[in-house]
Amino acid sequence: MKRSLGARTVAYPLPVFLVGTYDSNRKPDVMAAAWGGICSSEPPSIAVSIRPSRYTHRNLLEKQAFTISIPSIAQMAEADFFGMVPGSDTDKFAKTGFTPVRAEHVDAPYVGECPVVLECRVINTVEIGSHTQFIGEILDVKCDESVLGADGKPDLALMKAIGYDPVRSDYFITGAVVGKAFTQGNKYRK
Amino acid sequence: MKRSLGARTVAYPLPVFLVGTYDSNRKPDVMAAAWGGICSSEPPSIAVSIRPSRYTHRNLLEKQAFTISIPSIAQMAEADFFGMVPGSDTDKFAKTGFTPVRAEHVDAPYVGECPVVLECRVINTVEIGSHTQFIGEILDVKCDESVLGADGKPDLALMKAIGYDPVRSDYFITGAVVGKAFTQGNKYRK
Repeated sequence: MKRSLGARTVAYPLPVFLVGTYDSNRKPDVMAAAWGGICSSEPPSIAVSIRPSRYTHRNLLEKQAFTISIPSIAQMAEADFFGMVPGSDTDKFAKTGFTPVRAEHVDAPYVGECPVVLECRVINTVEIGSHTQFIGEILDVKCDESVLGADGKPDLALMKAIGYDPVRSDYFITGAVVGKAFTQGNKYRK
Repeated sequence: MKRSLGARTVAYPLPVFLVGTYDSNRKPDVMAAAWGGICSSEPPSIAVSIRPSRYTHRNLLEKQAFTISIPSIAQMAEADFFGMVPGSDTDKFAKTGFTPVRAEHVDAPYVGECPVVLECRVINTVEIGSHTQFIGEILDVKCDESVLGADGKPDLALMKAIGYDPVRSDYFITGAVVGKAFTQGNKYRK
């Protein structure tokens, strides 16, 4: 039996994306955003939605560039802080002691401490009610060697990435691998 | 030390969204999609990207309505199957024995077996290279009573939602709650 929860922003799992930008004075800023996801394979693209009131929004319009840093559980408190305070009057990197690293391919900083980072250039913006969706072409993905498995690929078990529960405002950790895609379904394929 | 993985569709965690639509003959169809996420708070909206070659794409253009069913680990094999075969020549509900339930607010079916479902009407479409992004206003969220906690809110531990690892093509389970948002960061707020 299903119960209606009404018209709400609910889905699982949602990410914790740390969106890195420079302002016009090249002060590095970073904010946390759970409204986003991959949106195209070719070009490889990711979307993130930001309210126009946010400092990040202004930076994005100006620089047309951003990074996404993916936090592990080890960066949870800092990631949370990045979503709590405005970048306009806080140097969030200085407050947390985290390291702004200039991206290689775009004019934006990423969070050096995060295990996985994406470098993106804005290719489209879409106004959707309360938020502007920034669509970024992913120009590079960088990954800490410490979270690469023996096969050279990122390993979620090593990464310990976190996600966001929008109903409870909880962070959860990504759990165990439970199946291989494009094989589980074979039992129905006949 | 970070290693470059190149320009790729990588982010964590990614969802497993089951996109439900009717075709012009009212045959219910469902496909699995990992390219998507919440994209606005007001109106509450969710985006999902679909290749133009997909049967779902045609249905979406015609009906301007869809559902998102969120699978738990109990529906993993079926969810995988829904991403493996085209809806044009397969009745995926019949093949799996899963139940197409007509949504209450839109002309689209959801997967009755899934613990959480969203009912959406298309409010915008955006062409992004290989994919069309469909932006849906969430008109209702429905949740199985069995995954509601004592406080009446959906509980991830009961839901056992799965996510997708785009590098390894693995499904993973959402793990334990590790922190409360908007409190963890207080230590840096002074």
